[in-house]
Amino acid sequence: MQIAFLLFPGFTSLDAIGPYDVLSRIPGAEAMFVSERPGPVANEVGSLSVVAEGALGDASSPDILVVPGGPGTRRLLEHAPVLDWLRHTHERTSWTTSVCTGSLLLAAAGILEGLPAATHWLARDLLASLGAQPVPERVVVEGKIVTAAGVSSGIDMALLLVQRMLGDEAAQAIQLAIEYDPQPPFDSGSPEKAPPEIVSAVRSRAAAAL
Amino acid sequence: MQIAFLLFPGFTSLDAIGPYDVLSRIPGAEAMFVSERPGPVANEVGSLSVVAEGALGDASSPDILVVPGGPGTRRLLEHAPVLDWLRHTHERTSWTTSVCTGSLLLAAAGILEGLPAATHWLARDLLASLGAQPVPERVVVEGKIVTAAGVSSGIDMALLLVQRMLGDEAAQAIQLAIEYDPQPPFDSGSPEKAPPEIVSAVRSRAAAAL
Repeated sequence: MQIAFLLFPGFTSLDAIGPYDVLSRIPGAEAMFVSERPGPVANEVGSLSVVAEGALGDASSPDILVVPGGPGTRRLLEHAPVLDWLRHTHERTSWTTSVCTGSLLLAAAGILEGLPAATHWLARDLLASLGAQPVPERVVVEGKIVTAAGVSSGIDMALLLVQRMLGDEAAQAIQLAIEYDPQPPFDSGSPEKAPPEIVSAVRSRAAAAL
Repeated sequence: MQIAFLLFPGFTSLDAIGPYDVLSRIPGAEAMFVSERPGPVANEVGSLSVVAEGALGDASSPDILVVPGGPGTRRLLEHAPVLDWLRHTHERTSWTTSVCTGSLLLAAAGILEGLPAATHWLARDLLASLGAQPVPERVVVEGKIVTAAGVSSGIDMALLLVQRMLGDEAAQAIQLAIEYDPQPPFDSGSPEKAPPEIVSAVRSRAAAAL
């Protein structure tokens, strides 16, 4: 089983590494990070670089495609080399997945046209403008396309994917191996649950950053 | 605020990136990945490399030290260059933290002598043999030392740290920014909750891998 993770400058690290740490534990799975330009790829902050071992063409028919999000997605929404590769690769995958604003790239490539999809809560309007139907859920499965909400949701997405592919016990074993027994200090992990003033503050900060 | 993340060959990626993605969102925070040898550092599987921008000496007085775990910790339990750096650095930090089997390194450096500490559930006996008191909790705060359980627990640890340092609203804002509203598909994230046969299977596989 081959799993390709797309990297691009300005990706969000946990978007990629959450699913990677789950999916790379599948016995026999071969994970590969690819990017338009192989080599170290810097994240949104610039203090983390993950090495892309291959170019896009080095992973043209993975079984699973994982597209992370991050502020860097905004520079790729009309960038043919990446969008063409996404379209081409999607035709060959068993599963095409995204985390966070990675769904914007799938939508920009035409893969989510008219389909329900998850994304970071701050990007729902933008996702709609790209032709998808944003859904306020943590993970949305639509045929072979699996989209997840913001950043940390990729862990839940990947465990769900393991369950669908390999069954309950395989998913439970990986959940236990990564000790995924979440105990967040607050119940403020979604805009529907967080205090309104926190939602406003995060929205303003994100707008200023973009 | 400077935050140093230790890297070493065979680290577990989510151990490091979970806390990184949380803590690097603190306004003004400067995160730095350091390793005995700067450059790309491969994780336990070998398919992911994170770039260490500096050598250990380049981060001798960070405000926060984060020590991830992974199978690679086993090769460092008597490795003076890393253990000496941990001891030296710990004297200067405001917070010394570990995720997963990163606590084995803190213990091997003498930092956890006689103290309660969390670790990956499979490493509790080994942690005890190194002089600490393993506690089956997700995050343990002992003075300025904060230890977390396996892999994914570093996210909870980091949010707790933000709360302690900057208050409830700062932690809630980051939790919302990373949409940390966990919805695991099963309740099998700890050995106390997972079905016994899953616990046995994961234990056997880990023993075989080591």
